[in-house]
Amino acid sequence: MRCNDRSLLPTQEGAMSYARQLLDTYPRSFDLDAGVLAATIDAANDCAQACTSCADDDLSEPDVAEMVKCIRLCLDCADVCTATGRVISRQTEYDAVLTRSLLEACVTACSSSGDECERHAAMHEHCRVCAEACRRCEQACQQLLAAMQ
Amino acid sequence: MRCNDRSLLPTQEGAMSYARQLLDTYPRSFDLDAGVLAATIDAANDCAQACTSCADDDLSEPDVAEMVKCIRLCLDCADVCTATGRVISRQTEYDAVLTRSLLEACVTACSSSGDECERHAAMHEHCRVCAEACRRCEQACQQLLAAMQ
Amino acid sequence: MRCNDRSLLPTQEGAMSYARQLLDTYPRSFDLDAGVLAATIDAANDCAQACTSCADDDLSEPDVAEMVKCIRLCLDCADVCTATGRVISRQTEYDAVLTRSLLEACVTACSSSGDECERHAAMHEHCRVCAEACRRCEQACQQLLAAMQ
Amino acid sequence: MRCNDRSLLPTQEGAMSYARQLLDTYPRSFDLDAGVLAATIDAANDCAQACTSCADDDLSEPDVAEMVKCIRLCLDCADVCTATGRVISRQTEYDAVLTRSLLEACVTACSSSGDECERHAAMHEHCRVCAEACRRCEQACQQLLAAMQ
Repeated sequence: MRCNDRSLLPTQEGAMSYARQLLDTYPRSFDLDAGVLAATIDAANDCAQACTSCADDDLSEPDVAEMVKCIRLCLDCADVCTATGRVISRQTEYDAVLTRSLLEACVTACSSSGDECERHAAMHEHCRVCAEACRRCEQACQQLLAAMQ
Repeated sequence: MRCNDRSLLPTQEGAMSYARQLLDTYPRSFDLDAGVLAATIDAANDCAQACTSCADDDLSEPDVAEMVKCIRLCLDCADVCTATGRVISRQTEYDAVLTRSLLEACVTACSSSGDECERHAAMHEHCRVCAEACRRCEQACQQLLAAMQ
Repeated sequence: MRCNDRSLLPTQEGAMSYARQLLDTYPRSFDLDAGVLAATIDAANDCAQACTSCADDDLSEPDVAEMVKCIRLCLDCADVCTATGRVISRQTEYDAVLTRSLLEACVTACSSSGDECERHAAMHEHCRVCAEACRRCEQACQQLLAAMQ
Repeated sequence: MRCNDRSLLPTQEGAMSYARQLLDTYPRSFDLDAGVLAATIDAANDCAQACTSCADDDLSEPDVAEMVKCIRLCLDCADVCTATGRVISRQTEYDAVLTRSLLEACVTACSSSGDECERHAAMHEHCRVCAEACRRCEQACQQLLAAMQ
């Protein structure tokens, strides 16, 4: 069992992520699938966390000068994922045009950051973990974009 | 089993939160207990997520005028928890004075928001869930403060 | 003289925005025009500030139930503008694809929020001010996008 | 004339910062002095901007390994100032305990970051500018704390 796949967990209380629990207690209905939406919110928040930590890990590497591009792209990705996680958490007066545009920016940020982390994955374990978080978020955003068609 | 207690999970790959995985791959050593630290990072990010969603849920309630204080305190709590989660994710050149001061502000934010959400918990299920996230984060911050002594 | 047009100010110390001063002290060169870039950074930060305040002003209006859409779109716009201001402040290992994608999301956020605030401008003075901040940021992002061609 | 002292500017439209304009159009009354409050909001947003840029400038310095502490403290300071600027922008259901606690954390963050930037000010012009932004924000927060007594 992989708890990072939090929205796929059984539905007893506490086993679901807060994102999913809060979607399930939203007072109105919304068009999107709650499972896909919660998975994307969780993936964005996880990726923001992983990128914040990875940028900090890079700063402690002896070869920090080689990690400058990784730091910059992880900082960007953390900022974009934080904003995306917040915006897609809001269902009230949902704005599909903004949601789509921001999800596309988030895919771009995760793709850039994931590519760069992957280049360092064999050398730096934290880059391997962060690349995984970036890929998951990239895919989750693409699945949500597909579900919005 | 409660997956929100993510840092307490067994250590096979993928079962741990990204916060914990990134702490375990940090290239240097750090003084704090990784389990306590990861639990606080996760609790802060979970609380930021719950408060962002709860403020939005409030906006869709028919009695939105009664929920104004809850919205305001949840927005504050989301902002403070986001900042706290980011700052305590960084181990490089750790600054104990800032960490302590920010954790105290986070305890205050979670306490205010948790109290207000609790007042609405019987009426609004999302407030009950959000109050739980606030209490968990408040406790996690206090445990990290205690571990820093 | 309009001090919000901060990047157009004369260049004696202290008269320029911090965004412009920090661009002028960047240790390497960068391709974009510093004036256009600084104006966009300042407009994004001003818009994030205005939208955060406007959402709070809405919460204190007697007709808060009428302002729900305005609150939601202002919260989104604040989050997107904050992320955009941060990302475009970074020149190191500049990523044109991400920058363009995020600027487009920011144009969308400012446009949605500006339209909604404009609808309330005759009734609520803070919405008139916030709509102006949204329009300025929308235009600044479009000018930066044009300058990137 | 120093436009960064934006809340001290004459009151014709457009000459005031958006923070001040939005405080002046707040639909209810609030206890704090609008000039002191607007100056602190502006100082926090300016400092968040300066620290975001300074951390990026550091990444482009040939001696990046010497700037690691500066990067880390500037990233922290940007996060705390962003949260502080947002929280003190909200007047609805004002929470003095949280405001005070967060202002104290912000003073600590600006002090740490300002001290470190000052150490590099003779060598790196961007650190001199950023140190100034940190000192101004530190002082503004202290003045607001004093005004709250």
